[in-house]
Amino acid sequence: MPGAVMDWQRVERIGLPEAVYAEGKTPQQIQQIVDAAQDEGRRLLITRLDAEKYAALPEAARTVIDYDATSRTAILGAPQGALPIAAAIVTAGLADLPVAAEAERTLAFSGVGATLFCDVGVAGLWRLLDRIDEIRRHRVVIAAAGMEGALFSVLAGLIAAPVIAVPTSVGRGVATGGRVALESALGSCAPGLVVVNIDNGFGAAQAALRILRAPRAAEL
Amino acid sequence: MPGAVMDWQRVERIGLPEAVYAEGKTPQQIQQIVDAAQDEGRRLLITRLDAEKYAALPEAARTVIDYDATSRTAILGAPQGALPIAAAIVTAGLADLPVAAEAERTLAFSGVGATLFCDVGVAGLWRLLDRIDEIRRHRVVIAAAGMEGALFSVLAGLIAAPVIAVPTSVGRGVATGGRVALESALGSCAPGLVVVNIDNGFGAAQAALRILRAPRAAEL
Amino acid sequence: MPGAVMDWQRVERIGLPEAVYAEGKTPQQIQQIVDAAQDEGRRLLITRLDAEKYAALPEAARTVIDYDATSRTAILGAPQGALPIAAAIVTAGLADLPVAAEAERTLAFSGVGATLFCDVGVAGLWRLLDRIDEIRRHRVVIAAAGMEGALFSVLAGLIAAPVIAVPTSVGRGVATGGRVALESALGSCAPGLVVVNIDNGFGAAQAALRILRAPRAAEL
Amino acid sequence: MPGAVMDWQRVERIGLPEAVYAEGKTPQQIQQIVDAAQDEGRRLLITRLDAEKYAALPEAARTVIDYDATSRTAILGAPQGALPIAAAIVTAGLADLPVAAEAERTLAFSGVGATLFCDVGVAGLWRLLDRIDEIRRHRVVIAAAGMEGALFSVLAGLIAAPVIAVPTSVGRGVATGGRVALESALGSCAPGLVVVNIDNGFGAAQAALRILRAPRAAEL
Amino acid sequence: MPGAVMDWQRVERIGLPEAVYAEGKTPQQIQQIVDAAQDEGRRLLITRLDAEKYAALPEAARTVIDYDATSRTAILGAPQGALPIAAAIVTAGLADLPVAAEAERTLAFSGVGATLFCDVGVAGLWRLLDRIDEIRRHRVVIAAAGMEGALFSVLAGLIAAPVIAVPTSVGRGVATGGRVALESALGSCAPGLVVVNIDNGFGAAQAALRILRAPRAAEL
Amino acid sequence: MPGAVMDWQRVERIGLPEAVYAEGKTPQQIQQIVDAAQDEGRRLLITRLDAEKYAALPEAARTVIDYDATSRTAILGAPQGALPIAAAIVTAGLADLPVAAEAERTLAFSGVGATLFCDVGVAGLWRLLDRIDEIRRHRVVIAAAGMEGALFSVLAGLIAAPVIAVPTSVGRGVATGGRVALESALGSCAPGLVVVNIDNGFGAAQAALRILRAPRAAEL
Amino acid sequence: MPGAVMDWQRVERIGLPEAVYAEGKTPQQIQQIVDAAQDEGRRLLITRLDAEKYAALPEAARTVIDYDATSRTAILGAPQGALPIAAAIVTAGLADLPVAAEAERTLAFSGVGATLFCDVGVAGLWRLLDRIDEIRRHRVVIAAAGMEGALFSVLAGLIAAPVIAVPTSVGRGVATGGRVALESALGSCAPGLVVVNIDNGFGAAQAALRILRAPRAAEL
Amino acid sequence: MPGAVMDWQRVERIGLPEAVYAEGKTPQQIQQIVDAAQDEGRRLLITRLDAEKYAALPEAARTVIDYDATSRTAILGAPQGALPIAAAIVTAGLADLPVAAEAERTLAFSGVGATLFCDVGVAGLWRLLDRIDEIRRHRVVIAAAGMEGALFSVLAGLIAAPVIAVPTSVGRGVATGGRVALESALGSCAPGLVVVNIDNGFGAAQAALRILRAPRAAEL
Repeated sequence: MPGAVMDWQRVERIGLPEAVYAEGKTPQQIQQIVDAAQDEGRRLLITRLDAEKYAALPEAARTVIDYDATSRTAILGAPQGALPIAAAIVTAGLADLPVAAEAERTLAFSGVGATLFCDVGVAGLWRLLDRIDEIRRHRVVIAAAGMEGALFSVLAGLIAAPVIAVPTSVGRGVATGGRVALESALGSCAPGLVVVNIDNGFGAAQAALRILRAPRAAEL
Repeated sequence: MPGAVMDWQRVERIGLPEAVYAEGKTPQQIQQIVDAAQDEGRRLLITRLDAEKYAALPEAARTVIDYDATSRTAILGAPQGALPIAAAIVTAGLADLPVAAEAERTLAFSGVGATLFCDVGVAGLWRLLDRIDEIRRHRVVIAAAGMEGALFSVLAGLIAAPVIAVPTSVGRGVATGGRVALESALGSCAPGLVVVNIDNGFGAAQAALRILRAPRAAEL
Repeated sequence: MPGAVMDWQRVERIGLPEAVYAEGKTPQQIQQIVDAAQDEGRRLLITRLDAEKYAALPEAARTVIDYDATSRTAILGAPQGALPIAAAIVTAGLADLPVAAEAERTLAFSGVGATLFCDVGVAGLWRLLDRIDEIRRHRVVIAAAGMEGALFSVLAGLIAAPVIAVPTSVGRGVATGGRVALESALGSCAPGLVVVNIDNGFGAAQAALRILRAPRAAEL
Repeated sequence: MPGAVMDWQRVERIGLPEAVYAEGKTPQQIQQIVDAAQDEGRRLLITRLDAEKYAALPEAARTVIDYDATSRTAILGAPQGALPIAAAIVTAGLADLPVAAEAERTLAFSGVGATLFCDVGVAGLWRLLDRIDEIRRHRVVIAAAGMEGALFSVLAGLIAAPVIAVPTSVGRGVATGGRVALESALGSCAPGLVVVNIDNGFGAAQAALRILRAPRAAEL
Repeated sequence: MPGAVMDWQRVERIGLPEAVYAEGKTPQQIQQIVDAAQDEGRRLLITRLDAEKYAALPEAARTVIDYDATSRTAILGAPQGALPIAAAIVTAGLADLPVAAEAERTLAFSGVGATLFCDVGVAGLWRLLDRIDEIRRHRVVIAAAGMEGALFSVLAGLIAAPVIAVPTSVGRGVATGGRVALESALGSCAPGLVVVNIDNGFGAAQAALRILRAPRAAEL
Repeated sequence: MPGAVMDWQRVERIGLPEAVYAEGKTPQQIQQIVDAAQDEGRRLLITRLDAEKYAALPEAARTVIDYDATSRTAILGAPQGALPIAAAIVTAGLADLPVAAEAERTLAFSGVGATLFCDVGVAGLWRLLDRIDEIRRHRVVIAAAGMEGALFSVLAGLIAAPVIAVPTSVGRGVATGGRVALESALGSCAPGLVVVNIDNGFGAAQAALRILRAPRAAEL
Repeated sequence: MPGAVMDWQRVERIGLPEAVYAEGKTPQQIQQIVDAAQDEGRRLLITRLDAEKYAALPEAARTVIDYDATSRTAILGAPQGALPIAAAIVTAGLADLPVAAEAERTLAFSGVGATLFCDVGVAGLWRLLDRIDEIRRHRVVIAAAGMEGALFSVLAGLIAAPVIAVPTSVGRGVATGGRVALESALGSCAPGLVVVNIDNGFGAAQAALRILRAPRAAEL
Repeated sequence: MPGAVMDWQRVERIGLPEAVYAEGKTPQQIQQIVDAAQDEGRRLLITRLDAEKYAALPEAARTVIDYDATSRTAILGAPQGALPIAAAIVTAGLADLPVAAEAERTLAFSGVGATLFCDVGVAGLWRLLDRIDEIRRHRVVIAAAGMEGALFSVLAGLIAAPVIAVPTSVGRGVATGGRVALESALGSCAPGLVVVNIDNGFGAAQAALRILRAPRAAEL
C-alpha cells in the first residue's frame, strides 16, 4: 500500500509548512509520517488527532510529539521561545473553543502568539463591547462562532484589522453543522470580512500567517 | 369559474380579519372581492397589490380603496382616528422598508399604531445603540432584516419585550432570497426570539395583534 | 482552559435568566457552572442534559439539582410554590413530549404553570376538536409537532391567543429531522403564527414569557 | 428536424391515452401533432397550452380543438355526453384552481365527471367540515393545495376513499414553488395518502382513472 | 408522563385501523399500548419494531404478538385464514425487501393477500419482462425501489392497474437515503404513477386498501 | 477592456479544439474571436449562440459562419466531407433534441458522424426496444434525457458500448432544471454509465471524441 | 418615506468608507444619497449600478459622478493621481471580468492600484504558469472564478501572499449561480485561502484594504 | 425469504459480469450467492465488503475467496496471469486510496492492469506535473479526488485520453461527503471529462472496460 507523498518543499515555496490531517488516517500511517519527518529533520504539525487515536499511537511516537487534547493537535519538534503576540482569537461561546485552540496552536507552530477572547457572543453584547479596545490592539483577528454567527458582522463593523471568520459546527435545529454560521459570514453586511471552511481553525491560522507576512502598504 | 370563499367570520372567531393576498389574483377577482366586502359592509385589507395591478383595477374600485405604494397595500373602509402606539418596527436597511411598511399598515388597519426605526443594522452598531432606549418603550417589537440577519440576535439580547423577526428577501450571493436571514433568526443565540416567513410583514403584524390582545400575566 | 462567561445580568436586563445548554459541554464544565451559580446565589436551569451525562456528574452536583429525564432538564434552587396556569402546551404525538416537557419546565423555572394537551394531531381531528375549548382558556399556546406539522395551521385557525409553533425532529423519510414541520409552520396559511427553531422547547417557553409579561393593549 | 413519436398504442396497452405537453413545444410542433391525430382519427388532449401559445396556433388548428383557458388544456375530438360523476376535486385556495381544472378536464376527456370543492383550506376549518359529507360521496378524491399543504392530512383523516394529493406551486417565502406542500403530503401523519408531482393535475387525474378502473375487492 | 391517545375509532371512520409506529417509543410505551388493545379487544399492528426492541419487550407481550423480523412488524390478534390475492408487490433489488415485507404484512393484517416479485430491477430488463404478465393479473401494484428508481417508470408504462411507488433508502453516493428514487417517481414520464414517503411500505399498503375498497366505475 | 485569451494550442495538446461558449459574451466579443480565428487560419466552433445573438452579429461574421438554430451552434471553416458514422445519439423526448443536436454538431466539427434516435423514452418501452439493435451497431452512445432519466439505466443495461448520459433541463415540478435526471444517471444501478453536466451536449461529444481516439485494448 | 442613514463615520472608525449598493434602490434614492454626500463634502462609491439605472439618474447626478459600465460602479469626487500597485486581480475567464473590475475600482477609490490578469483558468494550465512569477510580485491577490473554481486551489498552492477567492456566478448546469465555485474555494486543499460572497468584488477589495493596512509582522 | 436473482447473463449481454454489493446484505445472503456462483461455475466479484463482515462469513466462504482489505473487495475464482497495463488510476490524496483500489481490483477481475499514481493533488502542483508524462502513456485514466476536486480539471486539461472522474467522500466542512468534488467534476471547465457517482471506484472501472473494448476510430 502506497504511503503519503509529503510536500516538504511547501514551506520554501509559499512559507507555510505542510501539516498532517489525522482524520481518516490510521495510527500506522501517522506513525510513518512522524518517522519520515524525523528522518528529514523536519518539524511537523498534526491536526484533528482525537484523544482515542493519539492513545492508539505507538509509545515511541507519543514520546516525541507534544499533544494538546482541546485543539486535538500534536507538534513534533522543539518548541519556540516566547512568541510575539500578533493575533486575537475571539469566540462566541465556550463550545467554539476547540476550533479557536486549533488556530492558536497552528499560529504557535509558526512562531506567532495569540490572545484568546472567549465567550463574547452578541446575545450579551456588553461581553464583547467590554473587550473591544483590547481586541483592536492586534494586527489580525480570527473569530470563531457557530449558531447564527452574528458575532462576525458586529465585530467586523467595530475594528479595522483583517477579520477572518471561522464558522463552527456548533449549533442546533436549522443551525446544526455550521451552515448557517458560514452563510451568515459570507452574506454579512459588514465590509471586508473573509471566511474559511467550517471548523477550519487551521486554515484561519494559515490565512493569518499569509496576512502577517504580507508587507504593509505604508503609503496608503 | 368559482369565486373566493371569504372567511368573514374569522374576525369574530379569532379576532383577526381575513385579508386578501393579491399576488396570483386577477384584477377581476380582486374587484369581485371588493364588491362583496362592500355588500357585506365589511372593511378589507388587500396585501401584495403592486402598482401595476392597482392601476389595472376599474376606477370604481380605485376610488373606494386607500392605496399605499411602498407597502403595496390597499384598505377599504373608513380610516380610524389617531392610533395608540404599541409596536416598534425596526429595519436593518432601507431595502427592508416595504416589508416594514406592510406590517405598519396591517397594524393600522386593526387600530394599532407603530413607530418606525429604519436603517439601524449592526454593521454600524451605534445606529442601533443610539435608539435602543426609544425602542424599549414599545410593548412589542417587529424586526425586519435581510442579508445575514445579525440584527435579530443583537436586538433580542437588548430588550425584554416580545421580538418578532421578519427575515426579508434582501440579500445577494448566498444570502439571496432571505434564507440566510431566516435561518439566522431561527438559530439565534438570543433567548425567546420568534420568527415568521420571509417578507411576511403582514404575518408579523398579525402575530403582534395576538400578543397585544393576550392579557398580561400581572402576577409574574 | 478558559471557563464559561455567564451572563448573570441577563435576568435584570431582559427579564429572562441565562440557562446552560449541556450538549457539547463536559460534566466538569457543567459542575463548574453549578458551583459558580451556588457561589453567586443564583438559581439555574440546565437544558439538554441527557441521562448519561447527568449520571456522570459528581454526586455533589446531582444532590443539589432537581433532574427530570423526560425533558432532560435540571434545576438548581428552591422550587416555587403552586404556579398560576397561563400557557397551554399542545403536542401532535407522543414522540413530541420531550420537547413539550422542556417548554413546561422552562416556564415552571420562571414561575409560570402550563396545561399539557398531548397526542391531539389532526389525522384524528376529533382529538383536537374535543379539547379546543379547554385550550382556548389559556393566554398563550405552545404547539409541538413533527412530521408534516399540519397541527399548527389548524390550531392557529381556531384560537385567538398567540400560538408559538415548535417544530420537532420527529419524522421519517422526507420529514426526517423536522425540516418539513418547520417549513409548514413558516409557510402556514393561518394568520399570525410564530415559529422557533426545531426542538426548541426552551426558546418557545422564553418567547411565551416575553409575551406574558408584555402589557396588554387594553384599548384594542 | 425529427418530429414527435406518438405512443398511440398507449390507450390499448394501459388504458390511458397519450397526451401532448405543450410547454417547450413550438406552435408548429403542436400543429403537426394535431394533424397527425386527425389523420389517425384519434382524439387528443393537449395540456399546459397557455393562452399566448394557443393564440399562435394556425386558425385551422384553433377551429378543431376545444380550448379552456383556466386549465390551459385543449381537446381534439367529439365531446362525450353527460359524464357520470366519480371524483371529487378539492382545493385549499382559489389560486389552486388551474391545477384542479387540469385534473377535471383530463377526467372529462376520459369520460369521468367530477365535482369541484373550491377554497376549503383548513385555516378556516368550518369551510371543509361543512362540505365533508358531500365529498365523502365520491369514489376517489383529488386534493390540490399549496402553501403548507395541511389540507391533505386533515382530509385523508376524514374520508375512506383513495386521496390523491397534488401539491401546487402556490406559496410564498419558504413555501415558494410547492416544495413544502409536496413534503407535507409525503410526510403526512394521515394513513394511505398518495402523492403526485407539483402542479400535476393531469397526473392526478390519470391516477384516478387507474383507480376507478381497478375492480373492487368486494370481499374485503 | 402521559400515555398514547389511541384512535381506535379510525377503523370505523375511514376503514383503516390505527397502527403503532415503534421507532422512538420505549418498550414500556409499546407494552402499555398492547395492554390497552387487549383490554379493548382490538387487533393491533406494530411497525418499525426492530429485533432489539422486540427482544426488550416483557415476555408477556412477546407471547401474544406475532413478530416478523424482515418486515420489523408485529401483529396482535387472531390470524385470518387464507387471504384472497389482490396486490402485487414488486422490488428492484434484494435490499428493498424489508419495505416490501412491511407492505405485505400490513395488507395481510387487513385481510388482503399479495404476491411478491423480488429483484426485477431494470438494469437486467429481462428479469422484469419475464414476469410482467404475471404482475398484470393483480388489481393494484406496489413497487419498491431505491437507487435511481427507474423501475417505477418502466413498470407504470407497461401495466394498467394503479401503481404505488415506494422509494426506498437503498442507495449510495448521491442516491443515499432515497431522495433520488423519490424524485424519480414524482418526476416520472409514465402516466398516473402515485408515490408515498421513503421506506413507507405501511403507507403504500394503506393506499392499496383504500383503492381496493373503492367501488369500480363499471361504466368507464 | 481585455479580450479573450484563446487556447489555440489545445488541439495540439489534447486533440480537442477550444470552442467558444457564447452565453455571457457580447456580439462584439464573439466578433473579435471570429476575426482572431480567421487571422490565425483556425476553424472554430461556437456553442450556445441563440438566434437573437446570432442576428445581432455584424453581417461580415454571419456570412463566414454556418449557423444552426436547433443546436444553437455556429461553425467557422470549410465543412468536412461525408463523415464516418461512429456514435449513436439517443433522446428520451422531443424536448431533448437541442442538446442532442449540440452533441451532433460538435462531433461533426471534429469529423465524426452520428445517428440520431429521437423520442425513445421508456414510458413506451417498445419505442426503445424496436431500435436497440440498430443502436448497438455504434461504437459509442450519447443519451440525452430529462424528467426522471430512466432511459439511462435501461439503455446501459442493454448495450456493451460506452454510454455517456447527458441529463437535460427538461422537466417539471421536482424535476425542473435537470437535477433529478442528473442524479438518476449518477445513482444508476446499470454498470459503467458515465455522466456529464446538465444540457452539456458539447461535453458529451468531446468525451466521445476522447473515447473514439483511445486505442482499443484488442487483447481484452 | 424615510431616507438612508449613511454611516459617514465608518471611514474614521474602521478605515473603510461606506459605499452605496444600487441594486434595489430607486434612482431617486441614489440621487438623494449623492446630494447628501456632496453636502457633507464626502467622496462616494456606488456599486451594482447597471447601465439602465445610471441612464435613469437626473443629468445633474450623471455629471458629477464617474461611471464605469464594466464594473457597474460610479465614483463621486476627485480622482486620485497615479496609484501605487499593491494587488493582483486574477480571473479564470473573460466572463469573470465584471467582478474583477468591481474589485479594481473599489481599490482605486481607496488609492490602491492593481494589475489585472485575465483569462488564466487551469483548463489551459500554461496560461497561468506563464504569468505566475508576475503575479507573485504583488502583496495581495484577488482571484475571481466561476464554474468549478479550480483556479483557487492551484493559485494558493503556488504563491505565498494572501489569496482572496471571489467565486463568481459564471457557470452552467450544476454550477449555475456560483455555488460550486464557492464551495470549491471553502473546501480547497490549498492552505490559508480566504473567501468572500459570490460576485462580491467589492468585499474582496475591502478585505485587501484591511490586509494592506495591517502592519507586517517583521519578525516572523 | 426470497434470495437474490443473479443476472449471470450480463457478461454475455454487455460484456460486464454482475458483481455483488455487500453493503446491506447479511453474511448469510453473501454466502448463498457465493455458493450459487460456485454451483454455476462462475467467477464473482464482491465489493464494499468491510473487514468485519468478511470476518463474519463462514470459514468455507473465506477460504474460496481472495479478500483485499484496502479496496474492501473479494474475488471468487482463479486469478488471471500477468495483466496488460491499460489504465492509469490517479488520486489526489492518500485518503482516496480505497476508492482507487476498488477500481484497480475491478479492472484486474476483468483482466486489465492499472498503474496507481497516488497523492498527486494540485495544492502541490509539481507532484502532478512530475508524473504527467507517465500518466499520458495509458489508454484511459481514472481520477479519484475528494475535497474540492480541482485535480479533475487540471488533469483533463493536460491529457488526451478519456478521463473518468470519481469524486470521493473525503472532505470536511462544506466538502463533507463528496458533493463538492462531484459538482466540481460536473461543472469543470476542462473539455470532455466524464463523471461517476461518489466513491464509485467499481463503476469507474466498468466504464473504463466499456471504453477499452470499444473499437478505435482509426480514421479520425
